[in-house]
Formats: sequence, C-alpha cells, structure tokens
Amino acid sequence: MPQADGLRVSGPLPPGSTIGILGGGQLGRMLALAAARLGLRCHIYSPEPESPAFDVAAVRTVAAYEDGDALDAFARAVDVVTYEFENVDVASAERLARRVTVRPGARALAVSQDRLTEKSFLRDLGIETAPFTAVDDLGALAEALDALGRPAVLKTRRFGYDGKGQVRIAPVGEPADALAAIGGKPAILEGLVRFSREVSVIAVRAVDGAVACYDMAENVHRAGILHSSTVPARIAPATAQQGRVIAGKIMEGLDYVGVLGVEFFVVGGGPGEAMTERLVVNEIAPRVHNSGHWTQDACAVSQFENHIRAIAGWPLGPTTRHADAVMTNLIGDDAENWSVLAGDGEARLHLYGKREAWSGRKMGHVNRLVGPRATRSGGRPV
Amino acid sequence: MPQADGLRVSGPLPPGSTIGILGGGQLGRMLALAAARLGLRCHIYSPEPESPAFDVAAVRTVAAYEDGDALDAFARAVDVVTYEFENVDVASAERLARRVTVRPGARALAVSQDRLTEKSFLRDLGIETAPFTAVDDLGALAEALDALGRPAVLKTRRFGYDGKGQVRIAPVGEPADALAAIGGKPAILEGLVRFSREVSVIAVRAVDGAVACYDMAENVHRAGILHSSTVPARIAPATAQQGRVIAGKIMEGLDYVGVLGVEFFVVGGGPGEAMTERLVVNEIAPRVHNSGHWTQDACAVSQFENHIRAIAGWPLGPTTRHADAVMTNLIGDDAENWSVLAGDGEARLHLYGKREAWSGRKMGHVNRLVGPRATRSGGRPV
Repeated sequence: MPQADGLRVSGPLPPGSTIGILGGGQLGRMLALAAARLGLRCHIYSPEPESPAFDVAAVRTVAAYEDGDALDAFARAVDVVTYEFENVDVASAERLARRVTVRPGARALAVSQDRLTEKSFLRDLGIETAPFTAVDDLGALAEALDALGRPAVLKTRRFGYDGKGQVRIAPVGEPADALAAIGGKPAILEGLVRFSREVSVIAVRAVDGAVACYDMAENVHRAGILHSSTVPARIAPATAQQGRVIAGKIMEGLDYVGVLGVEFFVVGGGPGEAMTERLVVNEIAPRVHNSGHWTQDACAVSQFENHIRAIAGWPLGPTTRHADAVMTNLIGDDAENWSVLAGDGEARLHLYGKREAWSGRKMGHVNRLVGPRATRSGGRPV
Repeated sequence: MPQADGLRVSGPLPPGSTIGILGGGQLGRMLALAAARLGLRCHIYSPEPESPAFDVAAVRTVAAYEDGDALDAFARAVDVVTYEFENVDVASAERLARRVTVRPGARALAVSQDRLTEKSFLRDLGIETAPFTAVDDLGALAEALDALGRPAVLKTRRFGYDGKGQVRIAPVGEPADALAAIGGKPAILEGLVRFSREVSVIAVRAVDGAVACYDMAENVHRAGILHSSTVPARIAPATAQQGRVIAGKIMEGLDYVGVLGVEFFVVGGGPGEAMTERLVVNEIAPRVHNSGHWTQDACAVSQFENHIRAIAGWPLGPTTRHADAVMTNLIGDDAENWSVLAGDGEARLHLYGKREAWSGRKMGHVNRLVGPRATRSGGRPV
C-alpha cells in the first residue's frame, strides 16, 4: 500500500540498520534499549548534551532541532527517523522527510502539536472530544465562554504537556487573567467534561496497515502529571472496544506508522445517568506514551519494541499481557527512594539516568505485576 | 562482611554510577542494557573497535587487555569493574583491583580460566567432577590414559570455550596426534563421564553473601556449542537441590559477587543403574551464561539485571519465573532467518548487532515461553 510518510522503504530494515530518534529523553532511551534487543542501532539527535538517551545510543548528535545542516547529516546517517516527543518543528520533520523516511510522518506531528488542529481533525473523523472553540483574543474568549459555559479550561494551542500551558476559568474568574496566565498565546477554550475516570489506549500500526492495541490503562493524574496507570481499566468491554476503534480510525486517518497513545475521558454510565458509558478523546500523542510503560513487564513485547518494529517495517509483536499491572511514576524526589524500591521484590524498577531531580521531573517508574499469573508459583506478585 | 574482591565500596552504587565492563561481546551488551534500565551507565573496554556492546555503552575504550595505561584510565573512570568473559588476563584484573573494586574478583578468574586449577578447586571443596590428570607431555599423557582409560578427552588448560581446545582420544587413537591437535599446550586429560543429560544452574551472590538461583536448564550442545536450553530441566527435585548447594559452595569458596554459571552432567538414576541421580560438575563460568538467556523473557529479573545488581551492591531481584521456556541460539547462518522469526508471535527475538556471521558465531537467540502462564489468555505461548 502507498506510504504517505516520506521516502519509500522496500521491505523491513535488516538488523544492523540505524534508527534515528529525534529527542533524547527517557522515551528515546527506552526506544533505544528496545531497538538494541532486535539488533538495530540508534542514533539520537538532541540539543541537550546530557540527554538520558545518549547513554545507550550508538551515535549521538548534539544540535538544535532547527539546525538544517545537522538535520541533513542526520538524515544521511540513518535508515529511518522517528521521534520521542511531538513538539518537533514540523518544518524540520519535513526537511528530514525529503531525505529519509520519517515515521510517524510529519502530518501526525502537525496534527498533534496544535490542540485546535488535533480537535478539528478528530471532529472531522466523527470522534467525540470536549467541546472547544479557538480563542485568539479577549473578545473571542468572552464569546467562547458564553457558548461553552463555565467552568472551562483555556489551553495554549501549542507546546502544552504535563498540565503546562493551561488554566481553568472558574465561574467567577476574570477571562483577562486567564489569557494573561497562558501568555496571551493562540489558544482554545475547552468546555469541561464530566468524567468518571481517565483511561488510555496504546495502539500500534505497521507499514502494511496492520493494527494492534494493548489493553486499556486507567490513569490517575496529580497536578497535571501522570501518577499511575492500572491495567485492566475498570471499563465495560464495549467501552474498551470503542477505544480500539477510535485509535484505529485516528491511525488510518493519519496513515500512521508506529505507536500512538490516545487519552480518553470515560463519561456516562453512572447511576442515574441517561447515557451508557462511552469515551471522549482528551488528547493524542504520536509516540510511545507514559501510560504504556506497564507493557515493559507485563507483556512479551513492550510498546517500545512494537514502535521500533513498526517504524523498521517489521511485523508487529503480540500485544497480549501475562499479568495485571500497576505503573507508578517516580517524579522529582520520588526517585530518592530508589534503594528501598531496589530491595522490593515486587517492584520492577526503571530509572532514566537523569542526574538532577526537580519538581515535576520524571525520573523513573515502577511496574508492579498483580494477579495469579504474576509468578509461576501463583499468588505472589513479583 | 569483609570483601576479598578489591577495594571496599560502602553501600550500593547510586543510580548514575558507572559500571566498567571488560569485554564487548553480546554478554557485555546485554549487561549494559540491564544496567541502563536501573539508571546505571556502562563503560565498555574492548580491543575490538566493532564490539557489539559499544552500541549501547555510554563510554567506550578500545585498547588491549594488557595495556596498563588504558587499564589505569579505565579504573579511574568507573565505579566498579566486571567482565563478560573469563579469559581476562589475571594480572590485568589484579592491576585494576588495586585501583577499583573488581567483581567477581581476580581469584574467580584465576580459578576458572585454567581447567586444572578449576577442577582442583572443586575437588578440594568435595564437589565431584570428571576424573582428571594434568598432562604436560607425551609421557604424562600415556600415564594418564593408563589411569583414566579410554576413550578420554584431552583439553588445553587455558582458553577453551565452545568446544575449542579439546580433542577426544578414541580407544585406538594415537596419543601423540591428540597432543599435536591441541598444539602441545599444557593440558588435562579427563575421563569420560556417562551422563543422561547436561544441565546448568545460574546462581547469583550479593555483596552481603545472599545467594539466589534460577531454576535449572537442560542444555543441548551441537558441535561443542550450546544449541538450546529448556526450563525446567527433567531432573528430580533432589538433583536440582544438589545443583543449588554446589553453586552456593563454589560461590562461598570464591567469596564471589555476581552471577555464576555451573554446567553439570546428570549421571546415575537410569533403569538398571545402581546409583541414584546426581550431578557432576562439567565446568564453571564466572559470568552471565548463555544457558541463562531464557531468564530475559520468563523472569521478572533476568540474569543480566541480577549480575548488575550484585556487582553494584544492590539487593538481588527475585529469580522466580512466570513461564516455562526454551532458548535456542542463532548461530552463524541461523540469524539470516531473522525476518521469519520477527513475524513469529511466539518467538522472543534477541539479536546482537554483529555485522558479520561466520560458522559457529553466536548472532542472537530466541526465547519461547510455554505453558499455561505464557499469556494471560492461557494456552497460547507468546
């Protein structure tokens, strides 16, 4: 089938090929570890000399994401390019895509790095999101508040993650203060969604269009940052099926190759509610996702390996899991507890090699397997 | 407790510390991957510029193992030193040990890299091996053949692995030819052991003396090279217990820190045999071992992570497994089959990133999990 994501690659990349990764954080690091297991080399491109992914990369480039010469050299040195975060400059991704296959393609980046574009894209696919309106100035904000009601959330269109770039407008709040709080940047106003819980699906699509999904995770956020993901999520089978269908539609719509994370609100289905349980998309991430880290220990093939398989043109690996799981992030000072966690036989510890911890910084995570299949002897989680 | 293995390290090495690894093959590579997961950096020292482990190392040294200046610089750059093969020059290990902690210590190297020393050490611990005699010349060989009978196996004392450096002396064979076949090097003659199968145990000992063992694997060799390891081995519970006790004795005797592989012959216990089933040690490997690769996919904590934990002074992780497993090596041309294996949902593929395949070269391995706990849905191995 035709590929919309750059140059054509004929057949799977053989072992020994080099994967180029834009971004040197923990996601790039864990992608590099997964690639190494398959005999693939990684070339990490990051502007940060102390990037966690550099420690496990065969080749490193330290350069700005907008450095055309460095990007061209990078394109020549690798067999395929992927990225570990969605705020890569689209012009840079397009420049790379003229020289080497970029997966997922520049379109996935363009769509997902702008909340207005993303929500419009989803709406056009018939996928429900929170109600939203573009807001470029105070006048537009006032109109949007009239239309969507209060409370509502004002979010910058671009560069928001982990709760950054957004502010809640309370029933009595002053719209001008909210606009100032996000720096007066182009924004969207989102109406509040009454949800019972937050869940996500990690889906993956291969070059040949094959799609697979991991079981959905139930996510708890604290201060806008993911705190824990629990699998399975407490949702009806039909709701899980809806999540898989939505993920498939999105990937099809983007002619996507690689792992995609979709975060949902679960709405309806509560006592006294007229509507049955259903999913409303919160946001999409065109990359491996924090809420899929549990797959490292509960599945034969993790989200990281499946992303590498997909972008290398390999067949997908199974997404089944052999245990229930709870993933908990280690944020900021949490990682100081490493020696206790290292001695906890039930905790599967992952640390990212970051030298400095600060408030809100993701330093590592812990996976705990639960249920009768967690160990061979049964009953005792490992 | 006192450490005999170099300088003292107080407490566990914190994340961000650097592990020095002598040797850049696949074992070093898989150790580096395991270390990265725990937030530890690896510095790989190898004379080969194209070492597989270099692709996942934070720091690389290309230098001869006997290069004193390079060794000294390496010692200064790392927090602890380990090795991935037992033929490291003991003088080099001792030079390092004067500057930095080396685990396992130089004594484990000295004992295991000389078949005569190793077998004498085992005999002194009361552990049964094949009958053996030192052979330095033709006269000694003739005497040894008289004492041990024929057929027998003549093995070089040093630098033998994967069936290299050994020759079988048939009932009618000419002793002089056998001595010539191994280059006339210092050797031992081993009497043949009649065994029903070969098994191995992967054991690990922590700095505080804690010991843990993985379940024993049953190994099949072809042309002197490990072909497959199957877990569990078909042995009696008492035999498995004997294996654990022997491994513990050996590690205690060497004041060992890290993973140790012990290969055994299973003897006796057959129909019409007078003796009950028991274990005879074939050889020991003071390192992670090919017959423990199944732990990567069937256990929460692999042999590689447990070796890193031990040498870093961390508590050991659990050695329980959540499935039965079969590991099969990909040797030489076997790895050309990678694209078929990549599409086999039941094969967990590991490739070492070696650019060239040649006869007998280990290029990768495949783990297959079997039994009801291999997947959550039950019955279908992944």
